[in-house]
Amino acid sequence: MDKAQQDALKKAAGIEAAKLIEPGMIAGLGTGSTVRFFVDELGRRVQEEGLTFTGVTTSVRTKEQAEGYGITIVDVDDVDHIDVTVDGADEVDKDFNGIKGGGAALLWEKIVATNSSKIVWIVDESKVVDTIGAFPLPVEVIPFGAGHVVKLFESKGYKPVLRLDADGQAVRTDEKNYVVDLHLERIEHPEELAQDLITTVGVVEHGLFLNMVNTVIVGDPNGPRILTNSNK
Amino acid sequence: MDKAQQDALKKAAGIEAAKLIEPGMIAGLGTGSTVRFFVDELGRRVQEEGLTFTGVTTSVRTKEQAEGYGITIVDVDDVDHIDVTVDGADEVDKDFNGIKGGGAALLWEKIVATNSSKIVWIVDESKVVDTIGAFPLPVEVIPFGAGHVVKLFESKGYKPVLRLDADGQAVRTDEKNYVVDLHLERIEHPEELAQDLITTVGVVEHGLFLNMVNTVIVGDPNGPRILTNSNK
Repeated sequence: MDKAQQDALKKAAGIEAAKLIEPGMIAGLGTGSTVRFFVDELGRRVQEEGLTFTGVTTSVRTKEQAEGYGITIVDVDDVDHIDVTVDGADEVDKDFNGIKGGGAALLWEKIVATNSSKIVWIVDESKVVDTIGAFPLPVEVIPFGAGHVVKLFESKGYKPVLRLDADGQAVRTDEKNYVVDLHLERIEHPEELAQDLITTVGVVEHGLFLNMVNTVIVGDPNGPRILTNSNK
Repeated sequence: MDKAQQDALKKAAGIEAAKLIEPGMIAGLGTGSTVRFFVDELGRRVQEEGLTFTGVTTSVRTKEQAEGYGITIVDVDDVDHIDVTVDGADEVDKDFNGIKGGGAALLWEKIVATNSSKIVWIVDESKVVDTIGAFPLPVEVIPFGAGHVVKLFESKGYKPVLRLDADGQAVRTDEKNYVVDLHLERIEHPEELAQDLITTVGVVEHGLFLNMVNTVIVGDPNGPRILTNSNK
């Protein structure tokens, strides 16, 4: 599949997800290339249909995109709940365990998701996998002492790589932390790994989103497929 | 006990701890009013006895104090190990479970402690308790979404209070995060509480240091008392 075809599937999934946003809702708006299509469709509905809703964003760049359409964006702490959050994912398996954070926004994404009544992920088919882990698992790490965390991960066989930008500088998240990507290939026991990572001193958050999502909308050449998590 | 007497006991504990620093060591230097006396004594030994060692600090203010004495301070990521870290504590019980973070430096303190071969706490008698929790437990929280974390803690009966400075502004840690103090009074099950806190999305770290310390030096009118943790 070439990029144009993949973009068409992402766009179809984004348009499908935008149908979930109803007037007056408080909606969480995620981050990433698929979410960009979702926000574009919301912008079209705002401008053409007069849709009014309040958005909470998980990154500075989504905030800027949404505000460009005249969508009202408030801080997560200015709302007492979020009705539904639509976000992308880097991988998701049949148990609705996923990896997020390829875009380095995993911390704010997880905070918004935690405060959402319903979570929807929009992905193209390539993100649906049998076992997560081929996508490198992002871990957000405090810069102070980060070298020791990387060494610890190496000793555990986690194959950590500090994420660098095009200039060779360590990528900083919106919270100014580092991202360490774990090249695990296969994550057989995601719950155990999540527990190990979150209790590691210096780790702020990790990109494992385990059984958090309610619905996955998959871009498919035959039209978007809806996967519903019956354990939520 | 008045403040002058308490300071005398803190100073005695600090001087006792300084004896543990040998030439050529890499030493972690903590933060707080008792540690200040410890660093003063190290400074005296550097200047009068020619003691040479390398320090790693857990806060900007200790770094400045130490460098004022000509002590070489390096970043925690510039050393492959730390021989011994001397720090204060806000409370410690007979099982060597402690609370730290009154000075808002708990994250860096825990990172340095985690990378130390030996941990020594210097405290005055008032810090040694039967059950920890009378001292409000500091929790370092990401500002984004912090209001929801506070509400969650309230719903769990943790009695959270966002720490403010003299101007009524939220205190920021060296990592620019907030500190939420939990007024628990008694912490009967510190391991369970630690697990609940660290797995809360938005929490960076908490001030429970459970069975991490090897030796506690207690300032006492009859001379410093040494408590040794036989489970380490």
